[in-house]
Amino acid sequence: MSTLPPTIQKVIAHFSALPGIGQKTAERLVFYLLKQNREQTLDFGQALLGLKQNIQLCNQCGQYAEQNLCSICADKRRDQNILCIVAEAIDVAALEKSGQFHGLYHILHGLLNPTENITPEKLNLKTLENKLRQGYVQEIILALNPTVEGETTNLYLIKLLKKYTIKITKLARGLPQGGDLEYADEVTLANAFKGRTNV
Amino acid sequence: MSTLPPTIQKVIAHFSALPGIGQKTAERLVFYLLKQNREQTLDFGQALLGLKQNIQLCNQCGQYAEQNLCSICADKRRDQNILCIVAEAIDVAALEKSGQFHGLYHILHGLLNPTENITPEKLNLKTLENKLRQGYVQEIILALNPTVEGETTNLYLIKLLKKYTIKITKLARGLPQGGDLEYADEVTLANAFKGRTNV
Repeated sequence: MSTLPPTIQKVIAHFSALPGIGQKTAERLVFYLLKQNREQTLDFGQALLGLKQNIQLCNQCGQYAEQNLCSICADKRRDQNILCIVAEAIDVAALEKSGQFHGLYHILHGLLNPTENITPEKLNLKTLENKLRQGYVQEIILALNPTVEGETTNLYLIKLLKKYTIKITKLARGLPQGGDLEYADEVTLANAFKGRTNV
Repeated sequence: MSTLPPTIQKVIAHFSALPGIGQKTAERLVFYLLKQNREQTLDFGQALLGLKQNIQLCNQCGQYAEQNLCSICADKRRDQNILCIVAEAIDVAALEKSGQFHGLYHILHGLLNPTENITPEKLNLKTLENKLRQGYVQEIILALNPTVEGETTNLYLIKLLKKYTIKITKLARGLPQGGDLEYADEVTLANAFKGRTNV
């Protein structure tokens, strides 16, 4: 690759630093961009700059936003009494797609993980407690990943939030839609049994 | 996704417009970038702008370059008598990796394709003929993709270049290294028979 101009090598390096994109794919993407029209690629570059220049964290929930409040926290039609706690900002997009939830979110920006030195102080918990002290929230839904780190964080939060006498729920565990019983792992199956519902 | 700030939606749209990157992957990449440090993402954005601001086509071969001449055409140690014709700029990187070729390249920026209206006028042929008229080139290697478009373009070039009385060769066809005889298609096998070599 040493025969390529430094400008091109630099863009390839940036693309191949992204998760799941190797050297070959990065080269293919950059040569694709070189063939695209000038305006489109310049707009892409400007948009990337905007990602760091225009984006801040929402004061209330910690979501990425262009103002002090994100579009969800600023939307007065949303149910202010119910709060869904997620680990990462990207989880909000996934949950919104379900169309089932009309309350507010709170983003922790991580999960407890002692081996990686992610302690409660590193999570976005201060604004959470501020919000709860205001007394509006009546139910908290824990929507963390069903992993060891997720369950550890659930236990920590349940203990932390006990003093607020708020109803705390967590997302149901069970068989994923379209999944195959034969390939489901034993924990998923055990959870499906435990959480079985009347028909 | 409508709850995401327009700035973020815009970057997601640009990523998902790239070949092989869907909406989900684009979202994942952008949320990854949002977590990275400011300098790195700003540098990525600047590098993308540079792709259109600093890059031009080499006067001689049509490769992407930062000056009038690309690094290969400017390298006087390379054999000026042998010219390898490729379809796309990215092919040069692949051929350079083989370490077998020390001559110069010429990039057509496409292959003849009547159904997509890619006619000889659309290919980078003018500078090729200018180069040949200078009389330095003694051998031309056709290194186009072994496809219908590649073979069509080979035939056109052979006819076009006949008047220069230059030796014309094309890359060998045969079994790819590490390939499995059982899964080789019949054209590859027929080519492997036709091109068999003494041992």
